Amino acid sequence: MPTLYHHPMSTASRFVRLILSEYGYQTDLAEEQPWERRRDFLALNPAGTLPVYLDDSMRALCGATVISEYLDETNGVLKRERRLLAEDPFQRAEIRRLTEWFLQKMESDVTRPLVRERIFKLQMTPAEGGGAPDSKVLRLSRANIRQHLKYLSWLAGSRTYLAGDRLSYADLAAAAALSVLDYMGEIDWSEAPVAKDWYQRLKSRPSFRPLLAERVRGLTPVSHYADLDF
Amino acid sequence: MPTLYHHPMSTASRFVRLILSEYGYQTDLAEEQPWERRRDFLALNPAGTLPVYLDDSMRALCGATVISEYLDETNGVLKRERRLLAEDPFQRAEIRRLTEWFLQKMESDVTRPLVRERIFKLQMTPAEGGGAPDSKVLRLSRANIRQHLKYLSWLAGSRTYLAGDRLSYADLAAAAALSVLDYMGEIDWSEAPVAKDWYQRLKSRPSFRPLLAERVRGLTPVSHYADLDF
Repeated sequence: MPTLYHHPMSTASRFVRLILSEYGYQTDLAEEQPWERRRDFLALNPAGTLPVYLDDSMRALCGATVISEYLDETNGVLKRERRLLAEDPFQRAEIRRLTEWFLQKMESDVTRPLVRERIFKLQMTPAEGGGAPDSKVLRLSRANIRQHLKYLSWLAGSRTYLAGDRLSYADLAAAAALSVLDYMGEIDWSEAPVAKDWYQRLKSRPSFRPLLAERVRGLTPVSHYADLDF
Repeated sequence: MPTLYHHPMSTASRFVRLILSEYGYQTDLAEEQPWERRRDFLALNPAGTLPVYLDDSMRALCGATVISEYLDETNGVLKRERRLLAEDPFQRAEIRRLTEWFLQKMESDVTRPLVRERIFKLQMTPAEGGGAPDSKVLRLSRANIRQHLKYLSWLAGSRTYLAGDRLSYADLAAAAALSVLDYMGEIDWSEAPVAKDWYQRLKSRPSFRPLLAERVRGLTPVSHYADLDF
């Protein structure tokens, strides 16, 4: 069976797990602490990033973009109206733009720094950069959440799904990011009712269940995290 | 005619210009200073990043990945052995992994900070973050160049082109990054003869000519920059 190297609090890993589950793939999950820079893991992916998909022939696919494009080419293309990338090249471009927005821009503005400060640093040794969270980083990243929720609300309010009429990679990327932030209690849902409605729909999909059951060392999720009616 | 919003010292912009030229596209070039966060530009691309490709119907494609995938789907697919992405999904994954390496990892480790400190900050107002280069950032980024040249040399030494037998997006991404660093005189070619041979081949392609003729305000290129025999 293929193996997915992942971390429960990595947006990109959650995004790929959602795709695999929506397409009905079975994989073994191997949890990786990327800050350890484990030699065997770097041999699979010299960039040291998550996730990495190792297929049955031991060929590695590195990173969320590479994996998601590969899954579209080898599987999505056969799924017709359940395909998570569109047929039309311009529509595909819009899905990719939004996917990149949530996996890269929101990740560097908000999600990565908050996860690092609040979760990873608890588990890192001092030599790896562990220690107490930096309050300046927390403040800056939290200030960025509101802009991202506003953009998400605008998208969710003007379309059925974020990139159009159909569920796509854009929704899975956004929901992956929000689920990580929500685990940490960083989202004030009362401020974003439209985004909340959309997230509730995503969260109710069977592909989301394993993510909602997951816990990380050092931080229990907010009480409504796994609640479908929050 | 379509318009490409770009900056001469943006790796991602150079990468897309090389693809357009290799595929024989004609576009107008519009230089954008991304740090100005111009309102009309943000309306095209809310992420504020370069490049942006505006087609004849005024539809915008945002960012190097989105544009390069679109060009492959609408044009590359017809190019047979001149296609810059492979046919085989695994080979495509390898090309995408390396393209991402040079456009994202090398960009954040090396190219972006050096361009910002040495070129952009000269042109920015103090309110935009302009001023003298930060010597600590220069030192850190320069220390990272060697690792990236080593990896590039290894790739160039074991394959005809970086991702295999054929010229691909991976070569254009790497050459775009190196050309920006070389303009600034940041590369010691005597340390990397294999990478140099490969770069010489890339630099000699007609698609490279416009890049080698280009100059930016405040910094003249090193003397060998446009030399095909450096």
